[in-house]
Order: sequence, then C-alpha cells, then structure tokens
Amino acid sequence: MTDIAMIRAAAARLEGHARRTPLLSSPFLDQIAGRRVLVKPECLQHTGSFKYRGGRAALSALVPAVRARGVIAYSSGNHAQGVARAAAEFGVPAVIVMPRDAPQLKIDNTMSLGAEVILYDRAGGENREAIGEAIMRDRGLTLVKPYDDPQVIAGQGTCGLEIAAQARARGVQAADVLVCCGGGGLSSGIALALEAEAPGLSVRPCEPEGFDDVARSLRSGRIETNDRQSDNVCDAILTPAPGALTFPVMRRLCGPGLVVSETEALRAMALAFQRLKLVAEPGGAVALAAALFRRDDIAGDTVICTISGGNVDAAMFRQALGRFGD
Amino acid sequence: MTDIAMIRAAAARLEGHARRTPLLSSPFLDQIAGRRVLVKPECLQHTGSFKYRGGRAALSALVPAVRARGVIAYSSGNHAQGVARAAAEFGVPAVIVMPRDAPQLKIDNTMSLGAEVILYDRAGGENREAIGEAIMRDRGLTLVKPYDDPQVIAGQGTCGLEIAAQARARGVQAADVLVCCGGGGLSSGIALALEAEAPGLSVRPCEPEGFDDVARSLRSGRIETNDRQSDNVCDAILTPAPGALTFPVMRRLCGPGLVVSETEALRAMALAFQRLKLVAEPGGAVALAAALFRRDDIAGDTVICTISGGNVDAAMFRQALGRFGD
Repeated sequence: MTDIAMIRAAAARLEGHARRTPLLSSPFLDQIAGRRVLVKPECLQHTGSFKYRGGRAALSALVPAVRARGVIAYSSGNHAQGVARAAAEFGVPAVIVMPRDAPQLKIDNTMSLGAEVILYDRAGGENREAIGEAIMRDRGLTLVKPYDDPQVIAGQGTCGLEIAAQARARGVQAADVLVCCGGGGLSSGIALALEAEAPGLSVRPCEPEGFDDVARSLRSGRIETNDRQSDNVCDAILTPAPGALTFPVMRRLCGPGLVVSETEALRAMALAFQRLKLVAEPGGAVALAAALFRRDDIAGDTVICTISGGNVDAAMFRQALGRFGD
Repeated sequence: MTDIAMIRAAAARLEGHARRTPLLSSPFLDQIAGRRVLVKPECLQHTGSFKYRGGRAALSALVPAVRARGVIAYSSGNHAQGVARAAAEFGVPAVIVMPRDAPQLKIDNTMSLGAEVILYDRAGGENREAIGEAIMRDRGLTLVKPYDDPQVIAGQGTCGLEIAAQARARGVQAADVLVCCGGGGLSSGIALALEAEAPGLSVRPCEPEGFDDVARSLRSGRIETNDRQSDNVCDAILTPAPGALTFPVMRRLCGPGLVVSETEALRAMALAFQRLKLVAEPGGAVALAAALFRRDDIAGDTVICTISGGNVDAAMFRQALGRFGD
C-alpha cells in the first residue's frame, strides 16, 4: 500500500511534468467563510484536474517493457484525460473505455490527447469490464484504476506535499484541509502526505448530498454505499463507495466528512469565477462550498481547500453564473 | 525614469506580497496557434489583475511619513483595486475618484478593499481632476498614476522578471512576448526587464481594433491618439494615447503592435475558459487572441502571452461563452 516514501518517489518522477499549482486566496472569500481560506487550484493542473498526477505516477512506475505495450482505463471524464496525456508523453498506447453518453467534449479531448477511445452503451446494458478485459488480454495492456491503486494514490499525494510546503511558507501550523472526494484517491493521498509533512493539517473529505458514502463510512467505520449512481451536477465525484485501499487510510487519518448541496456547489463555482478568476466544475467546487457554507463545522482560523477540477462545459457554467453570478 | 535596478528593487519590495503567477499551456491552444503558447495569467494576481504590482510598488517606494497621509488615484477599474489593496496593506488611506457609471461591482470591490470612493458625473461634465486635486491638496495625498509613473512601471516590470526566469527554465531563448496594452505600463515594464534578463524575448503590445494608438505610434515614431474613447468590450485597456514615459521605452524595445477584433478577444476568453480554466476579461484576452489568431504576424516556435486581468462581470462572461463556448 501507498506510504510516504512512495509519494516522495512519485513527486520526484513528476518533477518537471506535473504543475506545482499555487495556493490562492481572496479577502472576499475570507469574509464569507469567517476565516482565512487558502485554495489549491488543481483545475490549473494539466488536463484540468488533479487526475494527471495519478496517471503520470502510475505510468512512470511501470517497467518500460510493460509500459510500452500500453495502458487501459475506464472513465467518463477526468481520469481518462489524465491517463491519456501521461501515455502520450511516454509515447505508449492508451485505450480508454468510455460510456457513449459521456459529454462529447470529454470524449473529444481524450481522443485529441492521443488515446484510442472505445465507446460502450451504458443504457443498453453493455458491460464495460467485459469489453475492456478482452482488449487488455489481447494486447497485454496494464489497467490504471481511477483511485484504488497504490501508485495512483501516491501521485495524488504529491498534491499534499505541495500543500504542506505552501502552508508552512505561510506559517499555517494547524488547519482543516477540505478535499473534493469521490473514491478517495485524492483524500487518502493528501492525508498520507500531510501525516508525514504537516501533522497539524487534517483532511476532511467533501461530498455532494445523496453521494455522501465516505462521510457515512467514516461515521460507521465500514464501507457504506450510495443508493443512487448518477443524477447530480457533481458528475466527477459520483462513485458508489470508498475504495478498499483508500478507505482504511481515510478512516485512520481523516476528520469527519462534509456534505454540501448541488446549489451550494454551483454558488461556490460562481464565487471562484468572481473572486479567484478560476473555472471550477461542480464536483471540483464542493470543498470550496464546504469552506464557505459549513463554517460552523470547521475549526481554526485558516481552512485550506482543493478545487479538484475545472472540466465543465460552457452551458453548465453559464447556468451557474446565471443563477449565482451577480 | 525606470531602469532594471528599479525593477529589481520593486521585486524585492513585492516579495511575499505579490503572487508569482505560473506559466501555463495547453496542447489545444498550441494546435490553434501553430506553435507553443505559454500563458502568464495575471488574472490570478491579487485583485484580479497585474495592477496590484504597480500599486504596491508605488506605495512601498514612498517615504513612510508621506505614505501615511494617503494616496489618490483616478480609475474606473483595475488600477483602483490594485491601489486600494496596497493602501489597505500599509494601513494608509486611499481615495479613488471613479465615474458614477463605472461597473457597480468594481465600485463595490474598491470600497470593500477599504478605499474611500468619490463618484463623479462623467456625462454631466464634472471634471475629475478638479475634484481630485482639491482633495489631494487638502489632505496631502500622493497621486498614483495608472501607467506614466516610474515606480508603477517598475512594479509592472516585476512580471517581466518572472517571465524571463520561467522562459529560461523551459529552455526558451527567443520568443515574442505578447502583452495586453493600454497606456503601456505593463508593456514598457516587461520590455525593460527582458532587455536585461532575457534579451532574446521581445515585447509585442496588443490592442483592440479602433484603439490601436500604440501600434500606430510605433509605426509613425511619435505619439498617436485614438479617435474614440469608449464603446469597446476591452474597457480595461481603452486609453487615449501611449504615455510620455512609456512610449520612448516601447519605441526603443518593442516589436510591432498587434491588433485584434472584439470578436477575437471574446473567442480567446472562451478558449481560456475551456483550455486553461481561467477567467479573462476582454481587455485581458487580447494578447492571447493575437497569439491564436495572428499566427502569421508572429515569429518563432514559441510565443508567450499575458492574460492581464480577469475582472469581467458574469453577464459579459456568459455572453462570451454563449457565442463562442461550444
């Protein structure tokens, strides 16, 4: 399983490839939150989300002869693009199995990044694993899972190393670190990095209402699942349950989960636009929403939050600004 | 007049205050431009534009006893906010004289940053200098001009020091550096910094059609003026003519100006949204527009461009995305 040595090794392999994203702030956001808000904008990472870190970490950890045969991933969105870009950088094939009803922009981007995209019919009952496994076996591809993979968690953990250093540079000794959470790859990776490098900082996973499997799992002490699988604007972080690898880490290291509504996520998007000049996608804005609108559930005079991605289409963004932008 | 020593001194005074903005890129933008595009997003600077650099540089250069009496600025937008924030940081008064018809958001922001805002009636013929000079004399305030001030130019030049270092780190020896240009404070400041630190990089001022006073002045060798003063979406960079201090620098150091249409600026805004996850205002997007849509007027395999600001209201942003976001 991932440990701090693996995260540091991933950081060394990502050096000169992943962006070191800045830590931003606005006095206007501080006022709403009632404390200092420091924002880690992973929407500025390559491919528009933190997923590039994990993708590059996983591919760079493969033995060259294995990597040369190529990789495969199942994803409708950000993980697809992160793996596709990392594969392109290594000049190796990437096969991404995507649902036919994924946003056209995400399909187009993944193909433009050089991946071979195989579409399957989610509604028609096609089984993506069956499709993927046949191709994987035939071509000798390596599967890159979206979160339950030690090297992927290590890659996401490099974001935590940066947060630890950036907090230290600002004199922040203790703070909640709010992390947008789907399967828990980013939350568990950051938590492991902070445990070693900034033990006063504590991860709080943030989720949308109705998809609070991690918050409930942290309360009950065992893996809980969501009833629904879709129908929420926060599409990037709608996972059925915390991962088998990520949950034990989160259980050991994370504080209680925070849950926000779709409306709050959209309001946070509009505020990121107005006050930070950043484009956040709804799922990437839930941690900022929690920082701004769950102030009584957070401790301390400073809160750190991730904006985990910005891959939102123009129509959705216009809608958020139309409702909450003035 | 400003020289490299003043710019370096300004950088030392801004250390720990101004943000070192990153240098971003996207393979999708490279494809449109036909070369590598490196973007310097000053929309991520404090107050949402590069103007904070000049404001902080000017205030930090004042003798403390003079600074303590306060400063005054005339501005309807980004300079107002940059000076207001710098004054608040020093705990000294700022008076900003703004037209009553300035965007309400910019008036509100300037007041929220702690400045005293005095509104005047532009249409009714009130003279802002007359209003400002009386207050300045009564209170002993120091005027901070938006561009024709050696310390303001030095502050904007700190952006050029960063560009020089970031280009060097990427192995870029020669490139055009496209800069959004109003009165020429940012263009001349960057040009002076690059002359000393990266002589292979050459500034190209970028302007909107109908407000190409700098491009025409560079061609004729003397200060030319614009016929119109307003009525263009690029409100942040609509100045009547290049400055008396900035023009000689631009004439000596800059390559030919580049001119883009309003439509091209709005298209560049939509592409910054989609490909960089950044919010650019129209005037802040003209250099990116030139990089993308004036490829035959640019030399070399790499182009660097500023996004100089992101203070655009939600209605205008929605309109740009509605027209060009898909």
